[in-house]
Amino acid sequence: MNFEKKLSNVSKRIKSSIIRELLKITDPEMISFGGGVPDPETFPRDKLAKIAHDVITNEYKFTLQYGSTEGDNLLKDQYIKLLEKYENIHGLKHDNMVISVGSQQALYLVGMTFLDEDSICAASRPIYLGAASAFDQRNPRFINVPLLKDGMDMDYLETELEKLKQNGEIDKFKFVYAVSNFHNPAGVTMKLEKRKKLAELSEKYDFIIVEDDPYGALRFEGEKLPSIYSFAPERTILLNTFSKVLSPGLRIGLIVGDEYLIRRITMTKQAADLCTPPLTQRIAARYIEQNDLMEEIKPTIDLYKNKRDIFMNAMKEHLGDIKDIDWVYPEGGLFTWLILPKGFHTLEMFEMAKEEKVLYIPGAAFYVDEPDHNTMRLSFCLPTEEQLVVGLKRLRKTIERFAKEKGIEI
Amino acid sequence: MNFEKKLSNVSKRIKSSIIRELLKITDPEMISFGGGVPDPETFPRDKLAKIAHDVITNEYKFTLQYGSTEGDNLLKDQYIKLLEKYENIHGLKHDNMVISVGSQQALYLVGMTFLDEDSICAASRPIYLGAASAFDQRNPRFINVPLLKDGMDMDYLETELEKLKQNGEIDKFKFVYAVSNFHNPAGVTMKLEKRKKLAELSEKYDFIIVEDDPYGALRFEGEKLPSIYSFAPERTILLNTFSKVLSPGLRIGLIVGDEYLIRRITMTKQAADLCTPPLTQRIAARYIEQNDLMEEIKPTIDLYKNKRDIFMNAMKEHLGDIKDIDWVYPEGGLFTWLILPKGFHTLEMFEMAKEEKVLYIPGAAFYVDEPDHNTMRLSFCLPTEEQLVVGLKRLRKTIERFAKEKGIEI
Repeated sequence: MNFEKKLSNVSKRIKSSIIRELLKITDPEMISFGGGVPDPETFPRDKLAKIAHDVITNEYKFTLQYGSTEGDNLLKDQYIKLLEKYENIHGLKHDNMVISVGSQQALYLVGMTFLDEDSICAASRPIYLGAASAFDQRNPRFINVPLLKDGMDMDYLETELEKLKQNGEIDKFKFVYAVSNFHNPAGVTMKLEKRKKLAELSEKYDFIIVEDDPYGALRFEGEKLPSIYSFAPERTILLNTFSKVLSPGLRIGLIVGDEYLIRRITMTKQAADLCTPPLTQRIAARYIEQNDLMEEIKPTIDLYKNKRDIFMNAMKEHLGDIKDIDWVYPEGGLFTWLILPKGFHTLEMFEMAKEEKVLYIPGAAFYVDEPDHNTMRLSFCLPTEEQLVVGLKRLRKTIERFAKEKGIEI
Repeated sequence: MNFEKKLSNVSKRIKSSIIRELLKITDPEMISFGGGVPDPETFPRDKLAKIAHDVITNEYKFTLQYGSTEGDNLLKDQYIKLLEKYENIHGLKHDNMVISVGSQQALYLVGMTFLDEDSICAASRPIYLGAASAFDQRNPRFINVPLLKDGMDMDYLETELEKLKQNGEIDKFKFVYAVSNFHNPAGVTMKLEKRKKLAELSEKYDFIIVEDDPYGALRFEGEKLPSIYSFAPERTILLNTFSKVLSPGLRIGLIVGDEYLIRRITMTKQAADLCTPPLTQRIAARYIEQNDLMEEIKPTIDLYKNKRDIFMNAMKEHLGDIKDIDWVYPEGGLFTWLILPKGFHTLEMFEMAKEEKVLYIPGAAFYVDEPDHNTMRLSFCLPTEEQLVVGLKRLRKTIERFAKEKGIEI
């Protein structure tokens, strides 16, 4: 049977992700800066095991049964407290929240709820791959806003919005998607003035802000910045997740926003999967109730900070002398973004890197328009301290080989 | 802010489900035949609690980490054994399966993968509500095939397919959706000849069969029938779930089919939520590995069978004399379908039923075209034996009151 002709247009458009294919490499000699996954040794497994046992034994009528599409109210109560304490966000009610199957579902539901084929949305360039694939299900037009070291280029965004207004397309413009802290892939954090500016623009041009903050709790240094949400609470949808601070295997994401928006997103979710597993929701709820999440993750933050420091020093030492090279110094999170001189093509260079036994994610994975091929994402959270240094030496060798082959002066 | 104008066309079309609204009623005096949820006392909570503890403690690198979009291979191994033993389906490989967040997500992914706005699909009339809402995300045209007491009307289906062929629309026809055993809402099972016929038609008119079998294991009597899948394995997508035989709170669904189809569905899922929670998948895998699932659910089957018997007898006694009344005798599952005389309107009658302290689901919830308003879905699995009888007496009273008010002779 020719199944291809049975596929929907959406399905025909989906391409398997580059990352997905790359990460299938499982050579034990390989040092990988590829994966953005947390170190499993940081998961509080003993506590979670006990809680799982307890909530199945004592709360089985909830944890083993169908749940509401909106999500577990006990988990929402805990989230409300966390957001009060750490984000200074007050007055949230259950109806301002829906619990999703990880942040990926949150992005998908946002896309399905707001985008049509002729819609327009804006996001940073490079863009978080998961957001690109989620929104792309609706095939919207993207405004690709350059991502600078202090966040999206707000002047560029404003110019584009003004153009839309002038040519009568502003009503098709639905939202700006922004990762506020320690951007994936780029590692950058949006500075305070830009957060305020984005909130102002959302008023002026009447759009929704989708603020994605999976990494905010993983700050190594510097002052925590107020969320974009805090500057435009009535028109911001804030996405949060426990994947980076507790465990991604629980698949718990949170969507916070205006009651009407949350209701519409919930209705989309109802058709998509009825409900997030009550079991994993209640495990998360009891864990936060019984533990100070932010205290608990301090050792994790110290671990990642230490690796970040080693990595940044090794980059300076082993890559710093390359002409026109640049990278992002991340104040938190899991990633840095490396920009090689013009002429480099990190997708092409990938085979050479494999030979040298080092993996990265080619920047091409993070664009919805023509990629800047001289970029790559590097994650420092999983390799050991020694591997971080050895891996960068291998990367240096790879860069040298590629430069030589292509006749690029470095 | 006027958020409504920001909604996608898909989102604007979604209506909150009737069931969802009805089931919010929580009067303790009420006897409800509404919910289709299993009795939580039938969940093996002690075993699941121990397994959850063990798989978090010992398999945390898997259970607490991101998983593959395809799903847990250990769970697939167990499913392969189950399908061999109980469905006589052989030769399945991991690549023939993807694990979804419950059957609802399976339906949703099928819809997104195959349907466009100008696509056509066929389903029974009445239709399972979750399937209707999932497929309706793509706004396809439905062929609504009358559901008889032995399954879909295959002559009707064939006539409609032939019409599509004649008028050149057959290429837009993507799949037939069929609940093979103990249909929700109608309680009917597709007889053997119709299964074979559907397989033949799928060859002749070149379409996919989506066979949904959430209730098959809950057979009270009669001979188990071979799956539709077994008659057309290369073009059937078989959906299964643990929601009715283990626990719906785990949210584990299974999609089985041709490798190419599974790969495309998996790519849709990747954008939708990255992966089903590895924790709940591994809990299910270890449970099936350590227990004979079909032995374990025997007490549950006995429990539901006993309730079905009481309910059917009470229906005969308390409703049997009503002129032109009819209902389905289910050989398994959780539901029966009651057809009242012409003139009844079960949605209108609902307020009266509430006053009489009995709940049902008005048939209107289960149509994508103009409903047969004289129908209702009744579930017998949750009320106690006494409540089953008392509830039907209340329903009798409700019917009498409504008939009197409307001047219907019964």
